Amino acid sequence: MSLYIPYEEMKSTIRQAMLKAGVPEDKAEICAEIHTASSADGVESHGLNRVPRFIDYLERGLVDPLAEPEIISSRGAVERIDGHLGIGITNALFAADRAMELAKVHGIGCVALRNTTHWMRGGTYAHRTAEKGFMGISWICTESCMPLWGSDEMSVGNNPLCIGIPRDGSPVVLDMAMSQYAYGKLGVYELAGKQTEYPCGFDEEGKMTYDPGAVLKTKRIMPTGYWKGSGLALALDLAGTMMSCGKCTHEISEPRDGSCGGCSQIFITYDPNLFGDYDEVLKKTEARVAAVNAAHPSDPSRPVQWPGEGTAKRRAKSKERGVTANEKVWEEVCRLAAR
Amino acid sequence: MSLYIPYEEMKSTIRQAMLKAGVPEDKAEICAEIHTASSADGVESHGLNRVPRFIDYLERGLVDPLAEPEIISSRGAVERIDGHLGIGITNALFAADRAMELAKVHGIGCVALRNTTHWMRGGTYAHRTAEKGFMGISWICTESCMPLWGSDEMSVGNNPLCIGIPRDGSPVVLDMAMSQYAYGKLGVYELAGKQTEYPCGFDEEGKMTYDPGAVLKTKRIMPTGYWKGSGLALALDLAGTMMSCGKCTHEISEPRDGSCGGCSQIFITYDPNLFGDYDEVLKKTEARVAAVNAAHPSDPSRPVQWPGEGTAKRRAKSKERGVTANEKVWEEVCRLAAR
Repeated sequence: MSLYIPYEEMKSTIRQAMLKAGVPEDKAEICAEIHTASSADGVESHGLNRVPRFIDYLERGLVDPLAEPEIISSRGAVERIDGHLGIGITNALFAADRAMELAKVHGIGCVALRNTTHWMRGGTYAHRTAEKGFMGISWICTESCMPLWGSDEMSVGNNPLCIGIPRDGSPVVLDMAMSQYAYGKLGVYELAGKQTEYPCGFDEEGKMTYDPGAVLKTKRIMPTGYWKGSGLALALDLAGTMMSCGKCTHEISEPRDGSCGGCSQIFITYDPNLFGDYDEVLKKTEARVAAVNAAHPSDPSRPVQWPGEGTAKRRAKSKERGVTANEKVWEEVCRLAAR
Repeated sequence: MSLYIPYEEMKSTIRQAMLKAGVPEDKAEICAEIHTASSADGVESHGLNRVPRFIDYLERGLVDPLAEPEIISSRGAVERIDGHLGIGITNALFAADRAMELAKVHGIGCVALRNTTHWMRGGTYAHRTAEKGFMGISWICTESCMPLWGSDEMSVGNNPLCIGIPRDGSPVVLDMAMSQYAYGKLGVYELAGKQTEYPCGFDEEGKMTYDPGAVLKTKRIMPTGYWKGSGLALALDLAGTMMSCGKCTHEISEPRDGSCGGCSQIFITYDPNLFGDYDEVLKKTEARVAAVNAAHPSDPSRPVQWPGEGTAKRRAKSKERGVTANEKVWEEVCRLAAR
């Protein structure tokens, strides 16, 4: 069953649960805000739903709540940061902020963060960068969770790639994992007794299938765009490893480290006001965004949207009506907060 | 019918055809090499096959063979270049080389090239960067040639994204357009009387189809990964326009300008030896590449490959046996060279 929890109540409950698990006050505040915002925006998998698993990781020592990110190398417009297996969200925010500082000086800034932990919803950082007026490109090199094209075993990460474009209004934010459907999404389809609209992976006989249950069993999830998403995921892996000199996919695929334990993340930011013509650049952005909305829709009742267009509306609605929460998950987080 | 033309013969014939069309000697040499290499690598669409169209563009004044790229703004690690509608290949090479020069100084370099023309095979520049020891990310913002997800009209470019990873041996080069199948590829399927393996677009009734002929008619080509490739193409459009302050997609969609007339291209390069640990970085790259080849194949007779793995082999084979050429196209290029 779904509940509607007031935004501030959800946030303070998550905050409390984190404090009880040993997260320092300032970090608990930030993480609670970001998990709540994710749920409010409709990305429940990395919002409230992820809190118990995050706390489990803290308790198993996979995430060190006291570790601070450390700038270990710096040259020109590039920095390398060691996350020391600290909290993924606060590490990634630190790195994104450093990348913006570098972009202020050099026009473009690049931060490679290694030895960090799960950043939760990937779009968070591109969104933050864009809200501060910078264009941002970021991605994560995860453990293997998807077969490479032509393989029947998990051999590449789903490596979400995020691009944030600043605007006067809500930024455009692409948050794109390299699997066509996330495992979490397949679970939702399975629970609802539904097949996916497009092939979601391969079954036990190696046949392409629309059956989410079959793919949850084989773990042969479909790469986005078949061979193309497989190739892009691998290229991002290689590029991220090169930039961070961090762990390779196969080094972070040890299950004892949890999801994304010791992973690398890349943050590239660009200052669109670099050459003093931001007004013109902004006008072009607005014209392009308007052209998207003006594109003739294939279904007249569903206007064409840009990535992130619905986010601001969903957030506002969640703030008004309460944030959707699964009853069992909410009870669990309340229990973790009341210990 | 297919012919096998000796590599040097094809190159000198293309060179001659370009000279006859008014391309200066140095540029004709470079372009002939790149068109020939594309055909030799199996990318015939942007190799020999593209030469007559390129010469047609020259003759219609859509490409100015005498125009030189001009650095119009420069700050920190970023440069903007105006291509003055010069030759796409030589403009893009100039921009890629500038990006490497910037990366040598700042660790990362970023060049936004605007007002340029078709760069032919996109992977050329990521490959060049990687061969010189730099990691490269580049993309192009093309005219509309694909519907946005949810639209039934062409409203976004297919915007190829290329990533090149240096190695001791052949670089890893991803060259990924945001359409699942290129129009050229659909033409090949249609000629062979074949359906595509995966949905290639939408037919006249708006239904998803595997029929290449139907999609060539509607121009409703399928984005890579459905909604995902559509979103990524748009994000690259917006990012590229922001960086170059160049023409928006809808501004370069006027058919009178030819394909990619006045388009923008972005070149980001990164120096993997920035922090003096290139040996370690390279070892990680080799381990990752080896892990790809070691991934269990779903078909035991087809080992898993990384993007660009076949390129060096195909090039060597073409140099030995001759480069595959369509008879009619070859005759046409010979005619253009003999004028």
